[in-house]
Amino acid sequence: MSRFTPEKHLAQVQASMDAAGPRTAEVLRAAVKHLHAFVEEVNLTRDEWFAGIEFLTRVGQTCDATRQEFILLSDVLGVSMLVEMLNTPGDGAEATEPTVFGPFHVDGAPARPLGASIVDADVGGEPLTVRGTVRDTAGTPIAGASLDVWQTAPNGLYDVQDESQPPMNLRGVFTTGDDGGYSFETVRPAAYPIPGDGPVGDLLQAAGRHNWRPGHIHLAVSAPGHAPVITHIFDRASDYLDSDAVFGVRPSLVVDMDGGEARFDPVLLPVAT
Amino acid sequence: MSRFTPEKHLAQVQASMDAAGPRTAEVLRAAVKHLHAFVEEVNLTRDEWFAGIEFLTRVGQTCDATRQEFILLSDVLGVSMLVEMLNTPGDGAEATEPTVFGPFHVDGAPARPLGASIVDADVGGEPLTVRGTVRDTAGTPIAGASLDVWQTAPNGLYDVQDESQPPMNLRGVFTTGDDGGYSFETVRPAAYPIPGDGPVGDLLQAAGRHNWRPGHIHLAVSAPGHAPVITHIFDRASDYLDSDAVFGVRPSLVVDMDGGEARFDPVLLPVAT
Repeated sequence: MSRFTPEKHLAQVQASMDAAGPRTAEVLRAAVKHLHAFVEEVNLTRDEWFAGIEFLTRVGQTCDATRQEFILLSDVLGVSMLVEMLNTPGDGAEATEPTVFGPFHVDGAPARPLGASIVDADVGGEPLTVRGTVRDTAGTPIAGASLDVWQTAPNGLYDVQDESQPPMNLRGVFTTGDDGGYSFETVRPAAYPIPGDGPVGDLLQAAGRHNWRPGHIHLAVSAPGHAPVITHIFDRASDYLDSDAVFGVRPSLVVDMDGGEARFDPVLLPVAT
Repeated sequence: MSRFTPEKHLAQVQASMDAAGPRTAEVLRAAVKHLHAFVEEVNLTRDEWFAGIEFLTRVGQTCDATRQEFILLSDVLGVSMLVEMLNTPGDGAEATEPTVFGPFHVDGAPARPLGASIVDADVGGEPLTVRGTVRDTAGTPIAGASLDVWQTAPNGLYDVQDESQPPMNLRGVFTTGDDGGYSFETVRPAAYPIPGDGPVGDLLQAAGRHNWRPGHIHLAVSAPGHAPVITHIFDRASDYLDSDAVFGVRPSLVVDMDGGEARFDPVLLPVAT
């Protein structure tokens, strides 16, 4: 009687998923295929398998109402960034590149007039004016585009992490004028660490990696008739541009923030509505 | 400025693992490669990604001192079985096929004399004699081979799950005689469900799968100078032989248990010592 092969085994496991809905079956079949391929490629030992089981268990048990360690794991393995890339239509090289959404966005940030400051408290730091024009991929300015922006204070903390900041500090929603232009006043963003005291921190340490992100300002840019983009602008003078713990840096998103001025011109892809 | 591609992104994430020890780096690079390939192949949406995050979090949070839901997940995705296959040298088709170890083995089961019963309490059920000869792949009987056996009572429960059974009921360690032979008395094993009340149960339900295993007796067979094998024998008359929830059935391991007699001849692969 011939032995079962890994191929025959995989086929049996995949077939067991076929009674699910078509999309669920597709996702589960692919998940199983790649999981088995990983195990086979590295010839995973029983001890390594069990170390993996224990690691994933710790990741789950580190999650609570305010901490999501599995998202952090997805971030440091580049999966969150990949999902954002795949879900943002790009039309070749023309539209603004996306980057990770992250856990610090807050719905309902205040609408602020063009040119207003998003700094609602004395947080110190270097004043910065950010300005630019939102255009479509043909170069036409987009009036009425929305920019939802959020960032850390110079202490590296978002308002939601820092009792010394009032709610909605360093957050705001701006709407471009007739010329597609926008500007706002803020302070230079700071580099900051992602949580390093849990199993994901242990993984980074095992890989000889730090847990820092370079200084950046988040922008979610949208306009009717266009694909929205979730992105950042990064400070060209920041540390960690070459080693962002969550792999969010793109050369096209790195801007000069020296001299108190930064320019960023988002480009949106028109979509059929 | 050209957009980042998923390939370039993957290379960056993989490179970040290179400062780990060589084996850790190898495992992490492969894990990342297959994880990204999965996400790309199915074009995972943000909602699906988040559903996955929430599922894995629930799996982690279902684990406690007596329940390991991540092992259960590994089992129902065929990963546990694959690890066992890869870690058991087979020498073509000749040696006994392995199957899953499962969570119910207990160290220190009592040594029992050849021919003894492993039934220490009145559990009912159909009496069964199991006998056979342990041989090497050349057909030579192996004296002094050890068979560690464990199974459920006819109620589908192991001693460790069932207060009505004394500890070590339906467990025992046997040593083959000079002719390589062994035998023991027991009762016919029952089919039983794996836990279905957690997230893994929900996954099985989503895939239209049941959570049952066919009736079986576990055997861990070992002898000096030979590769040990962790395996089962399955009752040919049991339900679920074609749909074992953990994919452990192999045709070579299915035996007749009708008439109160079962025969199983383990074959071990000699290894250099």
